[in-house]
Amino acid sequence: MNVSVFRKAHFNAAHRLHNFNWTDERNKEVFGLCNNPNYHGHNYELEVKISGPIDPDTGMVVDLGWLADLIKQEIELRFDHKNLNLDTEEFRNLIPTAENIALVIWQILRAQVPGHLDLGVRLYETPRNFVEVPGS
Amino acid sequence: MNVSVFRKAHFNAAHRLHNFNWTDERNKEVFGLCNNPNYHGHNYELEVKISGPIDPDTGMVVDLGWLADLIKQEIELRFDHKNLNLDTEEFRNLIPTAENIALVIWQILRAQVPGHLDLGVRLYETPRNFVEVPGS
Amino acid sequence: MNVSVFRKAHFNAAHRLHNFNWTDERNKEVFGLCNNPNYHGHNYELEVKISGPIDPDTGMVVDLGWLADLIKQEIELRFDHKNLNLDTEEFRNLIPTAENIALVIWQILRAQVPGHLDLGVRLYETPRNFVEVPGS
Amino acid sequence: MNVSVFRKAHFNAAHRLHNFNWTDERNKEVFGLCNNPNYHGHNYELEVKISGPIDPDTGMVVDLGWLADLIKQEIELRFDHKNLNLDTEEFRNLIPTAENIALVIWQILRAQVPGHLDLGVRLYETPRNFVEVPGS
Amino acid sequence: MNVSVFRKAHFNAAHRLHNFNWTDERNKEVFGLCNNPNYHGHNYELEVKISGPIDPDTGMVVDLGWLADLIKQEIELRFDHKNLNLDTEEFRNLIPTAENIALVIWQILRAQVPGHLDLGVRLYETPRNFVEVPGS
Amino acid sequence: MNVSVFRKAHFNAAHRLHNFNWTDERNKEVFGLCNNPNYHGHNYELEVKISGPIDPDTGMVVDLGWLADLIKQEIELRFDHKNLNLDTEEFRNLIPTAENIALVIWQILRAQVPGHLDLGVRLYETPRNFVEVPGS
Repeated sequence: MNVSVFRKAHFNAAHRLHNFNWTDERNKEVFGLCNNPNYHGHNYELEVKISGPIDPDTGMVVDLGWLADLIKQEIELRFDHKNLNLDTEEFRNLIPTAENIALVIWQILRAQVPGHLDLGVRLYETPRNFVEVPGS
Repeated sequence: MNVSVFRKAHFNAAHRLHNFNWTDERNKEVFGLCNNPNYHGHNYELEVKISGPIDPDTGMVVDLGWLADLIKQEIELRFDHKNLNLDTEEFRNLIPTAENIALVIWQILRAQVPGHLDLGVRLYETPRNFVEVPGS
Repeated sequence: MNVSVFRKAHFNAAHRLHNFNWTDERNKEVFGLCNNPNYHGHNYELEVKISGPIDPDTGMVVDLGWLADLIKQEIELRFDHKNLNLDTEEFRNLIPTAENIALVIWQILRAQVPGHLDLGVRLYETPRNFVEVPGS
Repeated sequence: MNVSVFRKAHFNAAHRLHNFNWTDERNKEVFGLCNNPNYHGHNYELEVKISGPIDPDTGMVVDLGWLADLIKQEIELRFDHKNLNLDTEEFRNLIPTAENIALVIWQILRAQVPGHLDLGVRLYETPRNFVEVPGS
Repeated sequence: MNVSVFRKAHFNAAHRLHNFNWTDERNKEVFGLCNNPNYHGHNYELEVKISGPIDPDTGMVVDLGWLADLIKQEIELRFDHKNLNLDTEEFRNLIPTAENIALVIWQILRAQVPGHLDLGVRLYETPRNFVEVPGS
Repeated sequence: MNVSVFRKAHFNAAHRLHNFNWTDERNKEVFGLCNNPNYHGHNYELEVKISGPIDPDTGMVVDLGWLADLIKQEIELRFDHKNLNLDTEEFRNLIPTAENIALVIWQILRAQVPGHLDLGVRLYETPRNFVEVPGS
């Protein structure tokens, strides 16, 4: 039977929701306060989920120390205390909504997590708004 | 790949668990303290989940402002600061257990959420007891 | 040096804010939705704080098992799954606002907690609204 | 439509991660601080999930009082304030990782929960590390 | 006896810690990642505390609806979805550390809360870092 | 005006409450399950509070990075993943109740925090039981 393990992490970042193919009016209409040209920000809380069989020798699905380190190297160092629109390659041409941030995180981690293990990502933009890439 | 977005809301309400087809003894036996004829109450915490593809123009599955407003109009105005048994049509003949409240909320929202999007509902009656309509 | 120990508990209850000396209009104006004649309800989360010196023989200010039992006997059994206005002596003639409930709880416990120990009470009516009797 | 109900519980325990088939060096390398021969401990927070149809007579999937009592009898009395390695049969020859503890809890409860109901278990070892047996 | 009432609110904002009287090197040394010239951001969680006697007619210290509205008008509209350094008068020449933000909020609210009531402010910059103006 | 800053940290440890001057019967009577000779354990959540004036050059009471590092060096490295009774000097002859652990942490930090700043410590043994050294 497959079991899932979860590890939480967090990063603080500024962002702005803006579609450069649209007029300023259309952007304000769709994105409201999130379109502020001077940016606003969030404490992003991340939950990474990895599913697979328990290794009988270790009693673990994966080493949580390895997972914590992977998240630190690949996600926290990349996004923590950054302006997502200005400071990162990933969101230079991609609107940094919670949905897109979660998808980008999933893609970055998917490339590092062994293929026989399922991977999912949940990202809290605020305690009241969050998104999930159920993954596979 | 489908992504899920979640929005939290809350309402405070009184309720009583009572089956009018049963004797008082049977009601007390099954529902215990929750059968109090003078009602008791809860802070209900609601999580609404909508799943679908990310719109490439907005980077969103749905506009969370629209979803917050839908929940306010359809759920909070209907149930907040109400006696579920006496003040609402929905629970005049339906026992307002957490399971039934979640199902009713799911049905009300399902009628408003576009059909190509999945809908799920989680409802916390207390921080220790909660229910989920996984939906579709 | 004095140290404080805290114990959490909870009870679920229905209530109505209503001043019988006022007109219905005045009650609605002051208490709004909380004046609903059919009641609404909350999950009340209680924190009891006792301060005093550490007993060198036990390493404790008071036995938390004793405190948990005291709260159960004096507060939970009295208020849990009750309609505060109808089912309790304490709020027959006292408006069950969070402030008054906390004060009543403080008075009930003060009579049981040894006089050389300070007593404080914090009561969450919702996760967003709470009150504190700093006590002494 | 199936609905899920959840009940939370908790127990506090000591444990040590150690594979007796390995050298001390290998154990330290794999389990790190968790290999401390004198044990360390956690507040385990448990969420039990049961899924099935709503009984139209009660409005419930299962009686949460029954479920709370089942968890108390089968899990809390067995593991609370215990050293998992020394005081329990279950982990005498099984490494008490969060994954294995969750699986053991799932197996114990599965034997008691009626077969037509799905059963899942989530176990928090810390607020930042948790595991899930999605079950069936 | 005085009783305290608390109300929670929140706002999301971008900020940068920078002292314009210092060299870039000194700023980086003191403020580290928080000195990022492109800003980063937080979900600020605010707790406002007002202490005073219970009004016997209402059972309240102050009307929490009035307090919630005051916080919305004076704090949320001013700071929510803003860049504190660029979009607000208050932090044009004042470094927007959590300490200074809390003090500014206390000063803004102090001017509106009746003088016979004590006022305190707690501000969470993250769930792990927070500050308190005990006030008076 | 003085402002307080708070920093959270955590450590996981095993412990046993036992007074070696007492009989086994007396120990069981007073400490109950916490007297288990094989130990049990907790996730201790620590909040450190430092109060003082805001430095006008930095906008800070103290550098939270320095405080986080101090807590890591002095508290986490000393107590995390340890058996408090067996692995630490501090509790070889002192019963590791939450009260005593908090007091020991306060004493260790007090020796490192500049004397003109107030110091307080809150320690959660579980989410339901916690203690506070208000300090000075």
